[in-house]
Amino acid sequence: MVNIAVVGYGYWGPNLVRNFQELADANVTSCCDMNPERLAQVKSKFPAINTTANYDDILNDPLVDAVVISTPVSTHYELARKAFEHGKHVLLEKPATASVAEAEKLVEMADKQKLTFMVDHTFIYTGAVSKMKEIIDRGDLGDLYYFDSVRINLGLIQRDVNVLWDLAPHDLAIMDYLVKEKPVSVCATGVCHVGNGHENVAYLTVYFDSGLIAHFHNNWLSPVKIRTMLVGGSKKTIHYDDMEVSEKIKVYDRGVDVSTAEGIRDVLVSYRLGDMWAPRLDVTEALRVMAGEFVGCIKTGRRPLTDGVSGLNVVKILEASELSIKQRGKEIKL
Amino acid sequence: MVNIAVVGYGYWGPNLVRNFQELADANVTSCCDMNPERLAQVKSKFPAINTTANYDDILNDPLVDAVVISTPVSTHYELARKAFEHGKHVLLEKPATASVAEAEKLVEMADKQKLTFMVDHTFIYTGAVSKMKEIIDRGDLGDLYYFDSVRINLGLIQRDVNVLWDLAPHDLAIMDYLVKEKPVSVCATGVCHVGNGHENVAYLTVYFDSGLIAHFHNNWLSPVKIRTMLVGGSKKTIHYDDMEVSEKIKVYDRGVDVSTAEGIRDVLVSYRLGDMWAPRLDVTEALRVMAGEFVGCIKTGRRPLTDGVSGLNVVKILEASELSIKQRGKEIKL
Amino acid sequence: MVNIAVVGYGYWGPNLVRNFQELADANVTSCCDMNPERLAQVKSKFPAINTTANYDDILNDPLVDAVVISTPVSTHYELARKAFEHGKHVLLEKPATASVAEAEKLVEMADKQKLTFMVDHTFIYTGAVSKMKEIIDRGDLGDLYYFDSVRINLGLIQRDVNVLWDLAPHDLAIMDYLVKEKPVSVCATGVCHVGNGHENVAYLTVYFDSGLIAHFHNNWLSPVKIRTMLVGGSKKTIHYDDMEVSEKIKVYDRGVDVSTAEGIRDVLVSYRLGDMWAPRLDVTEALRVMAGEFVGCIKTGRRPLTDGVSGLNVVKILEASELSIKQRGKEIKL
Amino acid sequence: MVNIAVVGYGYWGPNLVRNFQELADANVTSCCDMNPERLAQVKSKFPAINTTANYDDILNDPLVDAVVISTPVSTHYELARKAFEHGKHVLLEKPATASVAEAEKLVEMADKQKLTFMVDHTFIYTGAVSKMKEIIDRGDLGDLYYFDSVRINLGLIQRDVNVLWDLAPHDLAIMDYLVKEKPVSVCATGVCHVGNGHENVAYLTVYFDSGLIAHFHNNWLSPVKIRTMLVGGSKKTIHYDDMEVSEKIKVYDRGVDVSTAEGIRDVLVSYRLGDMWAPRLDVTEALRVMAGEFVGCIKTGRRPLTDGVSGLNVVKILEASELSIKQRGKEIKL
Repeated sequence: MVNIAVVGYGYWGPNLVRNFQELADANVTSCCDMNPERLAQVKSKFPAINTTANYDDILNDPLVDAVVISTPVSTHYELARKAFEHGKHVLLEKPATASVAEAEKLVEMADKQKLTFMVDHTFIYTGAVSKMKEIIDRGDLGDLYYFDSVRINLGLIQRDVNVLWDLAPHDLAIMDYLVKEKPVSVCATGVCHVGNGHENVAYLTVYFDSGLIAHFHNNWLSPVKIRTMLVGGSKKTIHYDDMEVSEKIKVYDRGVDVSTAEGIRDVLVSYRLGDMWAPRLDVTEALRVMAGEFVGCIKTGRRPLTDGVSGLNVVKILEASELSIKQRGKEIKL
Repeated sequence: MVNIAVVGYGYWGPNLVRNFQELADANVTSCCDMNPERLAQVKSKFPAINTTANYDDILNDPLVDAVVISTPVSTHYELARKAFEHGKHVLLEKPATASVAEAEKLVEMADKQKLTFMVDHTFIYTGAVSKMKEIIDRGDLGDLYYFDSVRINLGLIQRDVNVLWDLAPHDLAIMDYLVKEKPVSVCATGVCHVGNGHENVAYLTVYFDSGLIAHFHNNWLSPVKIRTMLVGGSKKTIHYDDMEVSEKIKVYDRGVDVSTAEGIRDVLVSYRLGDMWAPRLDVTEALRVMAGEFVGCIKTGRRPLTDGVSGLNVVKILEASELSIKQRGKEIKL
Repeated sequence: MVNIAVVGYGYWGPNLVRNFQELADANVTSCCDMNPERLAQVKSKFPAINTTANYDDILNDPLVDAVVISTPVSTHYELARKAFEHGKHVLLEKPATASVAEAEKLVEMADKQKLTFMVDHTFIYTGAVSKMKEIIDRGDLGDLYYFDSVRINLGLIQRDVNVLWDLAPHDLAIMDYLVKEKPVSVCATGVCHVGNGHENVAYLTVYFDSGLIAHFHNNWLSPVKIRTMLVGGSKKTIHYDDMEVSEKIKVYDRGVDVSTAEGIRDVLVSYRLGDMWAPRLDVTEALRVMAGEFVGCIKTGRRPLTDGVSGLNVVKILEASELSIKQRGKEIKL
Repeated sequence: MVNIAVVGYGYWGPNLVRNFQELADANVTSCCDMNPERLAQVKSKFPAINTTANYDDILNDPLVDAVVISTPVSTHYELARKAFEHGKHVLLEKPATASVAEAEKLVEMADKQKLTFMVDHTFIYTGAVSKMKEIIDRGDLGDLYYFDSVRINLGLIQRDVNVLWDLAPHDLAIMDYLVKEKPVSVCATGVCHVGNGHENVAYLTVYFDSGLIAHFHNNWLSPVKIRTMLVGGSKKTIHYDDMEVSEKIKVYDRGVDVSTAEGIRDVLVSYRLGDMWAPRLDVTEALRVMAGEFVGCIKTGRRPLTDGVSGLNVVKILEASELSIKQRGKEIKL
């Protein structure tokens, strides 16, 4: 039985408590939040959980094996650092940290102390993304050409970060999971319209040496909710539409066949039309699978699918994108 | 009656001949193409039209009032220049020219000689775009915030130009028509996968001084055909989906209301949810309306909706985007 | 404060308990079910609720003002009858009863004793249906011509009833709510494929004297989930698609204008094309609104939107449809 | 070379002329219509085609091998009868005739004289329907359970027939082609709202002895255009959406597995969820394929896919449906 303390009981905290609580081999023993009203809510729903406004109570509780941190990103580093220092495993909400330096230090600490360090990139645990992973790893797409992601809707405008820090972590984590090659540089553009100085519309290009190009479009002002991803390869292309009820993943056997003859003027391009296939997806709640992964990794010592390094990879791109966006699209090396 | 010569009878030429032929106040008197088979096709369908492989025959024919040029873009400038020198009105297929310098010279020539110079930005003559124009000009959207365009499909890969030169002219022309403010700079990214050295996937950001941001996504390799545009403003947002059969234009009365209080930390954002409205659209064939506009402008001397300057504006952005894309997203001033 | 007993804690019961519990002016005091495991679930989630497997405990509890019955339909009549005899208000899950005779008796009992008798036709309390009601009552559609409903999906095949008794109550209740005119007869067709003798695919036509025709298509075997309704009138038409995330209701200002001249051969029909409008809908959870309606009616004595008579009206059509379906579409008068 | 005369040059005639004209082994030699303006149109577009207002000119022309009849359905029988009497092959537009008796006589005449008798059920020649045929014939669906067709839109209201005679022939022809079993009876319901006495909204159930049930919904007043078909079987289900641009056919590997145990109360139903597959479809214009089939059958003597018997089968159901609809859904044996 893994004993868990949940730190931060705001928007996401109740979902974390519920999911860890329902695991057979985990137990939420305590919950920490600075807001007494929220702690009262925990108590009324889960009388057995200890509540506290003092994080030290968690750190010093020898029963607590692991902390699950769901607080504002600016506090992640300090909370996780202290947890590692007290020998506790850590799960961080996304994005992992507010800077690359912070993420690197946490990865290092966790490795040194052989503690589990995981980031809650929830989408990795959906049936849709795991099916994409399976298809790509099998080589069905051929060489990867492009990775195009759109995640836009009327969103809760964040006070302290721009729309990329808020929405792109989902998509960057998926890219980090699906694509083995490491990105080399980014260009980002965007604008702030609503007065808090943070971009609410943004576009991000990520370059790879192989010729793969990735692009992310995030927008907090769109009245239309779009969550799509196109992953195009030399053989096949995946279209992922998260707003679809059942056929979220479609694999198209269509593309362009190119045969180069003598010179550039003689490029022969022919179209290949073919079937589309929408595989059945696992519909287990992703948060449940994620919670199980954290507990399973703690018990076995294996590395999580979304370990600290994946969190670091996402933060690297976010940090670079912020530099680029402020310089109107200047390429920033990773 | 305006007498028209059509130059170039390839993919688009037959549509031009048919539409000009069916106007009450125009007459296609001749057709020029270097390919004798194509000229034979013209003769068999339209025995009354004179055919020639020699452009000089057109230039020297005093009966010809106007030439409609539908040839590869690299030839536009020379053909149009000669036509103006012979006192003939000119309609050019999009994009107008292969360079800004060429387009500027043609605009200057046409103005000096008071000849009609029009570019076939066909989409401007669709019911969908003219309805968008009406809505925006009425101020329904409020201040314009963003203009996001996606035009992707399995496309006919061009030998001599990249995907932006091929597909973006449609969308840039629409932006030029809908947005009064002039853009100030561009950043473009993209990659070539199919061996001809020209990008087949590309992303283009266009900046404006007011805070408006425009973005264009073009892709020749997508098995999914998407043609959408989001034009977001402070009050309302238009979603234009050209693949919809009947409701191509949807106006959303939804958005974010911002009231800034004392400091940045006190930005108050509230959501405004409201109705959606899909106006009835005129369904007259756009090419017919475009042909009528050209003939009407010749007869009355008024300036076309899509005059040489609009053609020039589009080429300015294309030329800058090519500079930017080769420098991995470097901002290029317009 | 209205004290409520929930009878039946199966699939739907937990939703009922939760929603009544969260009302400010209601209190779930007890819960009755024959399955001890389910009662244990109630206790663990809601320690303050009394549980019992004996319905008499509920009937004899003077604190209980009203019973909410969510048991198999064959038991509804007996349970409701006894509740009325003990002076308690009654809310029945749909369909109200297993026969017209039963529903009529319950309506009579409730009226005589001035008790609230309501049926949980939940859809009536959705934002979509209440908006349709508003539009129709305002006369926007003109004369009603047709009411076409499709509700098909891979469904939980019921043991004791056919697909009409299972799925059509939703749609028949909506029709009963939206259409003031009373239906006069029905024809139903359908087939059983899966061995329990009850039709799993069925079609039902409902005639009205005015010329309005209604039709219902229900199917438990469809891999595609469709929930649509078309309500067509002489002026406008509503399309209701319950699977749409946000624009569930669309009002089309399109139709056919008919002007009859001397003879039938001279009917002049012209098309009227116009805008489409998708009104903003209230998104309050329907079950919450329904629960509030029940409690509000008990407190004020007013008649519920979905009173016993509406439950009776639905059962009348279901009973007639079963007669018709067994006689291969024979018209059955209502 | 097969010489063809087209009789009737109204709405559909020009498409027939164009498609037969473009076949390599056919030649449209003459065209007959009672309207001189239409004949003038033929002459201007196709100077080589002889035009006449006198059908006898066609009948007596020894060069004419076959007549293609595209006139109002009430005239089909007389025109076809005379053509057979003059030894000419016949293609009739759908529906084949105005009555079963007429269709039977024509089938008999054609058989006796060994002439090709074909009905233009164009949809049979689409890539979508031929793919469905291939899938069903291969047994992929298992036993057929239901065939549900919806074809509704704002339609050209016909003066002399109801909406079933106008729209259902498409769908009945598809059913006749896909389903080997013969239907046994029909029930139809419908209403006329627009004053010409012919139903503009109609529903038709077709029974088969095996338990297969087919249903057709046709409506001339719907502002929403829907053209869908669900063909459900014990193993798989096809969803055909003709309004989809590319994935018109989707095959769902989902369904209900039933294992009957001792008694009806023990029917065990389990759900089978699985992949969806959208096969690539041939996109050749159906009318071209149909024209080729007619000419090919004339040349080889083989029976057309849509021969006179398929035309007769469709008319049998239409005639029975009209009897049923007038008797409010009474079952009519076929």
